[in-house]
Amino acid sequence: MQIAVVLFEGFTSLDVVGPYETLQHLPGAETVLVSAARGPVRNDSGSLALVADRTFEEVTTPDIVVVPGGAEVGPQTEDAVLLEWLRSVDRGTTWTTSVCTGSLILGAAGLLTGRRATTHWLERERLRAVGAEPSAERVVFDGKYVTAAGVSAGIDMGLTLVGKIAGDRAARSVQLVLEYDPQPPYDAGSPEKAPADLVAEWRARAGQQV
Amino acid sequence: MQIAVVLFEGFTSLDVVGPYETLQHLPGAETVLVSAARGPVRNDSGSLALVADRTFEEVTTPDIVVVPGGAEVGPQTEDAVLLEWLRSVDRGTTWTTSVCTGSLILGAAGLLTGRRATTHWLERERLRAVGAEPSAERVVFDGKYVTAAGVSAGIDMGLTLVGKIAGDRAARSVQLVLEYDPQPPYDAGSPEKAPADLVAEWRARAGQQV
Repeated sequence: MQIAVVLFEGFTSLDVVGPYETLQHLPGAETVLVSAARGPVRNDSGSLALVADRTFEEVTTPDIVVVPGGAEVGPQTEDAVLLEWLRSVDRGTTWTTSVCTGSLILGAAGLLTGRRATTHWLERERLRAVGAEPSAERVVFDGKYVTAAGVSAGIDMGLTLVGKIAGDRAARSVQLVLEYDPQPPYDAGSPEKAPADLVAEWRARAGQQV
Repeated sequence: MQIAVVLFEGFTSLDVVGPYETLQHLPGAETVLVSAARGPVRNDSGSLALVADRTFEEVTTPDIVVVPGGAEVGPQTEDAVLLEWLRSVDRGTTWTTSVCTGSLILGAAGLLTGRRATTHWLERERLRAVGAEPSAERVVFDGKYVTAAGVSAGIDMGLTLVGKIAGDRAARSVQLVLEYDPQPPYDAGSPEKAPADLVAEWRARAGQQV
């Protein structure tokens, strides 16, 4: 089973590594970081680079594809090479997935039309522009299309997928070895739980009406 | 404020990216990935490489140092260059931190002697060999030394540190933008919660008596 995790300039690092670290434990899985060209690809804050070990041309039949988001995915939603590759590999995938604003890229490729999907909470309404129906759930399954909410939700998505693919025991085993027993020191991880002024501040930063 | 995140061959990717993704949001923070040499450094499963942008020689006075763990950190606990660099920068840090088995490296550098500390649940007893007192807490503070439990615990550590450094509001803001509202699909993230047979299986894999 081959798992292709997409890199592009401006990705969010935890969007990549959350699903990567969970899915790579699938029995028999080969995980590859793939991009337009081999070599370092820098993240959205510029201070971290991951290496693409394979080009899109070299990865044509992944079983699972994972598309991360980034602070600004506008360029990727207009990247003809990326979108065509996504449409092409999607014809053979068992699961086509995204984390955070990666769903806006999947949507731009035309893969979420008429489907329920999620994304970063700040960008949910943008899913409508690509023909998807926004959901506030943390991990959304619609057929073989699986979308996760913002950034850290990729860990929950990865673990859920391990369970679907390899069974509950395998998923619990991965959770245990990753010691994924989250104990956040605050309870502000969603717009419903966070203080209203913080939600308004992030909406204002994103150029949204508050 | 400079945050140095250490890379070495065989690191665990989420040990690096959990603290990175939280701490890089600290106001005024410069985050650098540092290793013995610049360039790609490969993780413990071999299928992911992060780029070290700076050498140890180039990073001499970080305010925060983060040491990740790896599936097998034996080589790092005997790496004189790494250990000497850790001892040297520790003289000037505000916080010296680790995730997972990174605490065994801090311990090998002599920095945890007589201190309470944690590590991956499978390796807790190894902390005694470096003179530390093992704790089962997820994030352990002992003075400026902060150690996190296995892999995913680095996110909780990072968020806790953001709160200590920049205040509760800043930490809640980071939690919200990372949408860190964990909803694991299983409840098997610690040896106390996981099925006993899985705990025994991991102990056996690690060569421990079960």
